Amino acid sequence: MPPPPRYPRRESPAPPPAGSENWLRPWAQMKYFSFHPAVYPNMLRAVSPDAGPGDLVNVYDKEGQIFGSGFYNPNAKVPLRVLQHGEEVLNEDLLDARLDAALDLRLKTLRLNETTDAWRVISSDGDGLSGLVVDRYADVLSIEVTTLGVWRRLSRWLPKLHAALGTKQHLIEVDPDIARIEGMRYADVPEADAPAPRSVRIRENGVRYQVSFEDGHKTGFFCDQRDNRLKFGKLAHGRRVLDLCSYTGGFALSARVSGGCEDVTGVDLDEKAIAQARKNADLNQVRIDWVHADTFTWSRQMQQNGALWDAVVLDPPKLVFSRDAEEGQLGRNKYFDMNAVALGLLKRGGLFVTCSCSGLLDVAEFEEIVMRAAHRNKRRLQIIDRTGAGTDHPVMSNCPESRYLKVLWCLAW
Amino acid sequence: MPPPPRYPRRESPAPPPAGSENWLRPWAQMKYFSFHPAVYPNMLRAVSPDAGPGDLVNVYDKEGQIFGSGFYNPNAKVPLRVLQHGEEVLNEDLLDARLDAALDLRLKTLRLNETTDAWRVISSDGDGLSGLVVDRYADVLSIEVTTLGVWRRLSRWLPKLHAALGTKQHLIEVDPDIARIEGMRYADVPEADAPAPRSVRIRENGVRYQVSFEDGHKTGFFCDQRDNRLKFGKLAHGRRVLDLCSYTGGFALSARVSGGCEDVTGVDLDEKAIAQARKNADLNQVRIDWVHADTFTWSRQMQQNGALWDAVVLDPPKLVFSRDAEEGQLGRNKYFDMNAVALGLLKRGGLFVTCSCSGLLDVAEFEEIVMRAAHRNKRRLQIIDRTGAGTDHPVMSNCPESRYLKVLWCLAW
Repeated sequence: MPPPPRYPRRESPAPPPAGSENWLRPWAQMKYFSFHPAVYPNMLRAVSPDAGPGDLVNVYDKEGQIFGSGFYNPNAKVPLRVLQHGEEVLNEDLLDARLDAALDLRLKTLRLNETTDAWRVISSDGDGLSGLVVDRYADVLSIEVTTLGVWRRLSRWLPKLHAALGTKQHLIEVDPDIARIEGMRYADVPEADAPAPRSVRIRENGVRYQVSFEDGHKTGFFCDQRDNRLKFGKLAHGRRVLDLCSYTGGFALSARVSGGCEDVTGVDLDEKAIAQARKNADLNQVRIDWVHADTFTWSRQMQQNGALWDAVVLDPPKLVFSRDAEEGQLGRNKYFDMNAVALGLLKRGGLFVTCSCSGLLDVAEFEEIVMRAAHRNKRRLQIIDRTGAGTDHPVMSNCPESRYLKVLWCLAW
Repeated sequence: MPPPPRYPRRESPAPPPAGSENWLRPWAQMKYFSFHPAVYPNMLRAVSPDAGPGDLVNVYDKEGQIFGSGFYNPNAKVPLRVLQHGEEVLNEDLLDARLDAALDLRLKTLRLNETTDAWRVISSDGDGLSGLVVDRYADVLSIEVTTLGVWRRLSRWLPKLHAALGTKQHLIEVDPDIARIEGMRYADVPEADAPAPRSVRIRENGVRYQVSFEDGHKTGFFCDQRDNRLKFGKLAHGRRVLDLCSYTGGFALSARVSGGCEDVTGVDLDEKAIAQARKNADLNQVRIDWVHADTFTWSRQMQQNGALWDAVVLDPPKLVFSRDAEEGQLGRNKYFDMNAVALGLLKRGGLFVTCSCSGLLDVAEFEEIVMRAAHRNKRRLQIIDRTGAGTDHPVMSNCPESRYLKVLWCLAW
């Protein structure tokens, strides 16, 4: 028997409100007004008895007016995920059309196929499909599911995706805790025709990478930095480059291959990532100096040695995890320290590119931290651009907190 | 005799502080600690008697420690403009090197020459040259000067700029009030070898424009939107396009010429701008429907007619001018109203690109206004990107409020 769900069900559901006998079934009624897609238990007033786990339900507001449609799952931490607002009823056909819209954005508007075979196909709430993330790596789909509503429809959607993208294989990732709480059964989703490979080769703006599906964070390749890698290669053109927290080597490779930089060093503490970076350099038949070390310690040592570069990129993993003031401050301090030490390795006038993927830090606050780190070290930053994740990582206006990546582009004076 | 300056001189300068006899002359001492380049009269403690208008002075902090260097002008509203912080003394050679740095950024790092012959060469505080803005349009330099420090050095800098850029002519713009207050004499700056033309033709990413130096806001062409025009052309590809506040037609032309959009309409209230837009379309041998009308009124009428487009770009002139809460709110309301009406002209899934050049509105607040306008109209925005001014419009970390342009890229659901 499975352990009990972590999040208790509501003990006594409210009785159906007067007039609800005329509502379109199945339905859920909200207690408060909110456009946010995530509706928590305390925000739900009542649910029709015929609303089952994973069902598409009609959403009514507290006044009894139709408000939208969404996925319902009484067992979930977020029992209602509103997918659409307004009077139009979202049916299965319209839900399928969201897949088409996501594909159209990438294939017809962004025309990603022209420059890469690795991109995000569906970005959960950012594409109005709460709980579904699909990344495409050459002919493999890497899929992450976090809602039962998506899980139940996956066997219908997978063939559609493969057909539209010409992909052949897929891997489905589900957090076991989430699967248990949401009530996802493995049997609900069919096996792929072919077994998923352990790795695949992709090509992004002329640079080759091996994407591994075994180890490391996700797949060892983040397509959200695609445009930033390209831009870095262009701007770093010919400079002596240092890639701090280089992971599997994206920025370093772009500088070496696209930017023609001959002297490129990448530093990362993750041994597997460095091994993958090394393979990626080999794939591109270029030489890059990979250093397996703690970025901060190594950088401080280099600073003491008086080493200087003319381009430094810093792309650390997420450092702010918590809304808690004290814990959040620790992460912010780490950004300050890492940016300060990275800036210390830059020649006057050198290119400094610094990233944060902490969603809890907005661009203004991140910039302020980086500026402070510069000013504290008697440097000034000439900021030439601020960018974010690639356009295949959209953010929906009613869920802006899903934005996370920020990149500042500066010359360090 | 000129009228008295608008900003009163300090009545009784403080006596030179103890120890100042050892300071590098000429000097100015600050009363407070601030990295901002603009130092107002009440922030200055004392100035050495030999510091003359337009001089480069050494800046000391309130403790008597060397703090930086800057332009001094006792008559100016901003008597001290700090150009450099730190112990290094900024001399005329190092000042000249700032011009080289600005040129290097554009020519070597950004390589703007490869895609356009219209770009910002020097962006005032953003290039550490407070009070100097230089735009380059083909072989013409359009120059705006707002400080005596720059004015005094212009005859030295102009030949350097022309030599580096291969430009031949220049126009110098000075606000008469500023010239009077700062004490700029026209005789200080030599005439160009050739008289400045009334207009010039430029080419940006394959699109031709005529830039006029006679009428309208500045030159009738804003190079800050260069990358955004290019991006719009790519994303709008093949769509039916509406350019609201089209001015001299940049976005519309990019959609028509680069994006191959056959049905493009531009709307602007400025008759001269529309006339220039018409000329620009002719230059590119394309047909665009130009409408001379108030954007808001016209858009509302179109909305009532049920007219719909599949791409709308909205780039109004500055609407928030004042830090005053009430006046500032009026501008914010205008953004809300204009975005609401523009969204009403978009098909579901249409591309919506909306701009704000009001520096007093930061990107978060602008986005929040646009989101509200969408939600009020039962639309949601799938935000794919946020961009700003081109990389030739840098912002210095100690003067971040010089940032002004924000562009949101969305699909309107």
